[in-house]
Amino acid sequence: MFTEKIERWGLFEWCGKGKTEGNPFKDYEIQAHFKSDNEDKTVCGFYDGQGIYKVHFMPEFEGIYEFSIQGSFTDEIVSGSFEVTAPTGNNHGPVLVCDKFHFRYADNTPYYSIGTTCYVWELQCDELIEKTFKSLETSGFNKIRFCIFPKHYDFNLREPRSYPYEGKPVDNSNITSENFLEYTGKTKGNKWDFYRFNPEHFEHIEKCIARLADLGIEADIIVFHPYDRWGFSQMSRDEDIFYMQYLINRLSAYRNIWWSMANEYDVFEHKNSADWDFIGNYFKANDPYDHLRSIHNCIDFYDHKKDWITHCSIQRQDLYKTAEYTDKWREKYQKPVVLDEIAYEGNIQHGWGNITGEEMVRRFWEGALRGGYPGHGETYYNKDDILWWSHGGELHGESYKRFRFLHQIMCETPGLGLKRDASDRRNWDCVMSVPEDDELYKKTGYQIYYFGFMRPSFREFCFEEGIEYKAEIIDTWNMTITDAGVHSGKFRINLPGTQFMAIRLRKNDIK
Amino acid sequence: MFTEKIERWGLFEWCGKGKTEGNPFKDYEIQAHFKSDNEDKTVCGFYDGQGIYKVHFMPEFEGIYEFSIQGSFTDEIVSGSFEVTAPTGNNHGPVLVCDKFHFRYADNTPYYSIGTTCYVWELQCDELIEKTFKSLETSGFNKIRFCIFPKHYDFNLREPRSYPYEGKPVDNSNITSENFLEYTGKTKGNKWDFYRFNPEHFEHIEKCIARLADLGIEADIIVFHPYDRWGFSQMSRDEDIFYMQYLINRLSAYRNIWWSMANEYDVFEHKNSADWDFIGNYFKANDPYDHLRSIHNCIDFYDHKKDWITHCSIQRQDLYKTAEYTDKWREKYQKPVVLDEIAYEGNIQHGWGNITGEEMVRRFWEGALRGGYPGHGETYYNKDDILWWSHGGELHGESYKRFRFLHQIMCETPGLGLKRDASDRRNWDCVMSVPEDDELYKKTGYQIYYFGFMRPSFREFCFEEGIEYKAEIIDTWNMTITDAGVHSGKFRINLPGTQFMAIRLRKNDIK
Repeated sequence: MFTEKIERWGLFEWCGKGKTEGNPFKDYEIQAHFKSDNEDKTVCGFYDGQGIYKVHFMPEFEGIYEFSIQGSFTDEIVSGSFEVTAPTGNNHGPVLVCDKFHFRYADNTPYYSIGTTCYVWELQCDELIEKTFKSLETSGFNKIRFCIFPKHYDFNLREPRSYPYEGKPVDNSNITSENFLEYTGKTKGNKWDFYRFNPEHFEHIEKCIARLADLGIEADIIVFHPYDRWGFSQMSRDEDIFYMQYLINRLSAYRNIWWSMANEYDVFEHKNSADWDFIGNYFKANDPYDHLRSIHNCIDFYDHKKDWITHCSIQRQDLYKTAEYTDKWREKYQKPVVLDEIAYEGNIQHGWGNITGEEMVRRFWEGALRGGYPGHGETYYNKDDILWWSHGGELHGESYKRFRFLHQIMCETPGLGLKRDASDRRNWDCVMSVPEDDELYKKTGYQIYYFGFMRPSFREFCFEEGIEYKAEIIDTWNMTITDAGVHSGKFRINLPGTQFMAIRLRKNDIK
Repeated sequence: MFTEKIERWGLFEWCGKGKTEGNPFKDYEIQAHFKSDNEDKTVCGFYDGQGIYKVHFMPEFEGIYEFSIQGSFTDEIVSGSFEVTAPTGNNHGPVLVCDKFHFRYADNTPYYSIGTTCYVWELQCDELIEKTFKSLETSGFNKIRFCIFPKHYDFNLREPRSYPYEGKPVDNSNITSENFLEYTGKTKGNKWDFYRFNPEHFEHIEKCIARLADLGIEADIIVFHPYDRWGFSQMSRDEDIFYMQYLINRLSAYRNIWWSMANEYDVFEHKNSADWDFIGNYFKANDPYDHLRSIHNCIDFYDHKKDWITHCSIQRQDLYKTAEYTDKWREKYQKPVVLDEIAYEGNIQHGWGNITGEEMVRRFWEGALRGGYPGHGETYYNKDDILWWSHGGELHGESYKRFRFLHQIMCETPGLGLKRDASDRRNWDCVMSVPEDDELYKKTGYQIYYFGFMRPSFREFCFEEGIEYKAEIIDTWNMTITDAGVHSGKFRINLPGTQFMAIRLRKNDIK
């Protein structure tokens, strides 16, 4: 008997013909049961249009799986089997929370998030999407945040390549950068059937997610967002559920999925906290793979202590201090702190979108060394109005070139994850970062001192005599690591007196 | 009859011979009474050594003054008269608090403070002092903070040019940059007579103060400070009083005197809040000219609401946000906010002393446009250990070149003083600064938008149609003001998309 082979945490897809009468999205259900020595899971399939029904499944163990699939439109039961093989390439499985403040892949590889935001990159034309993939390949990002629904906002006034639903939008061809705010939330005149999806829209997004997975990039899906003139932010509870279940059925089997319930939840006029709790809990209850879940603010933070939230997704609240608050938020929420917006490198007119590359990289280091996970974005003004922040395309800035280096440093952490050690008052003027695991810190003596925009010409250290420390000077902007010798007891490390420097120490006898 | 002439707010000095028996500093008193049509004031004189007694007096009105002087060592009364003429040059009289948050000179000229700190510049050798005066002449500072007592701290380990008291210090020739902290506060072995001043020390400081006055620079005298190995921070209450009264008698007649009770009051081990209140109230009660009074913190702010405090003297508490808190402090203390330390431009090892010139200038603008008065300092490492911060000398940085320009902008404010207007949410990402006086703002429409490290490519404005605004682009770093046309209604001002820019608007029909 022929047995299909797929990788552990790969996508198993079953495809079959079924009824087209009535509304197949709504009128029929399809369920699939998967069983192996280690797993026993039932998932829902979905209607893909044109009489095609599909089932998506992600096996979490190696070995032989047997399955049986049954649709409510037939008595026939389809069964079969497949073999799950070891993962290859960038496949380390889905990302999980680990040690309270950090992430790892399912195969235990540490996951150090270097995120970016491109809200509707996947709803642009093919040419632009290809440019985005190329940019992602050459940059160090391993997470990208984006929306399922199209976006209506400054620089985002065109109609998307496709809509999520059958129907058509009201004619809004007279929207301009000057008047777009008047159209925000004015959804009347749109004609959508919120119970008939446009499979083409979702199939396209799926393909993008699959390609991201191949690149080792997490897809942080923004389920709802308020920059809307079509009505997708104002659906009823029942319509929301119908949508969320479709997302789960189609997308959750992709290992790189994260669920962000909302971008700027507090800007929604038609949803309140109870709605968001319902939505978050819906994913918690119904996603068979328990993917990471978060909710993102405009001004006021959501209560990230809520049980359904796996990690904080934070937009900074202050113009000047952003990632510097990571310690406070870790302390408060006792969860990983992902800083999904710390402002954008760029030069547009909006105050959230015009910091320098230097400041962006500084915020990354400030956050990362405190055991947080800052996110990038880019908004350089250009005559084609193609901004990475929303459209993807090419990167024009300076910060993105420097994240792979930071990621390398993060990966060199003994164990999993860094944290700030503020216990020694002498380090009031820098971030002293040590491994999250105190035992590993004690064993390795691994410590990084980051000086941000400050420029000390040297730094003095005082350790127990007899224990040798290997010292390195890290230039976080120019991405160099310079050997600064082996020292013990009281010693001094000279620095160039420039910004964005760090000193890394670790015990010399430790690999 | 010959009548001496002095300027209004100039220094009248009387000099006479008297007894030398016993301790003339302590055993005799000398009082002087001054009277004119507008003024009637009694002040104390002081002993200047070698049998010389002096009286200093600052007349606050023009016209003929008559005086009589009497010493407790004689029955003789000296009397005379002098004529007070109009002030000339930089003489605008002493600085006063005005309109709650700001300062003006006694002649009503606005005083916009651009301060610097050189703790013991006047206790260096003559050559270095001359260099400091030259630097002050070519820079835009109009206030300098410095100590009466010598300073013991890193980079400040040598003995001073003179001591305030008769006696001699313990031999401390083995103090080094490594061990100096062990000597801080260890005052044993010093032999001082705290009731016999060294007049040479004070006469020299007086001359420096007088030269500062000629340059139009306020002398912000630090009465006590804790960086001490001689014992001057640990005197008894009675010794403190003796010292304060001597300062008042000798120095208060200089129009440019401000009294700072302490540098880093919270670092003193031998003084508590009650002591500081006593000290502050002593100056309030005994300074005949009611000069400005403040107290400066290391970490915790003093309660600047106290009645004896005329203005806040603030060292920033946060590494990242400094002058940005000006609004909060104005609101809290309802007094002028002088940011006497917002870190130092430089590259020394200490975290308070190594920011860039750009960051220093940014902090100045952030503070100044909020209606606060930031202060400069400079700590560039050099092999001679001559740092502006303590020793004066030459300026090596970049920020100091840019304060005269800021001062010019401040002086162009209609009325007296700026404040932040945060009422329009659209300005969340910049400092919109307007005249303190709401009526003048209404009349002139004068407003400055400062973007700090952010880089908008343009900015849109929306005013009532028909009212014309003259727009200018201010490059705060390159010190240029560029005409950006006359506009009304809704308009856009293009910017270069670089850091440290501001836009200034004012009604076109207003001069």
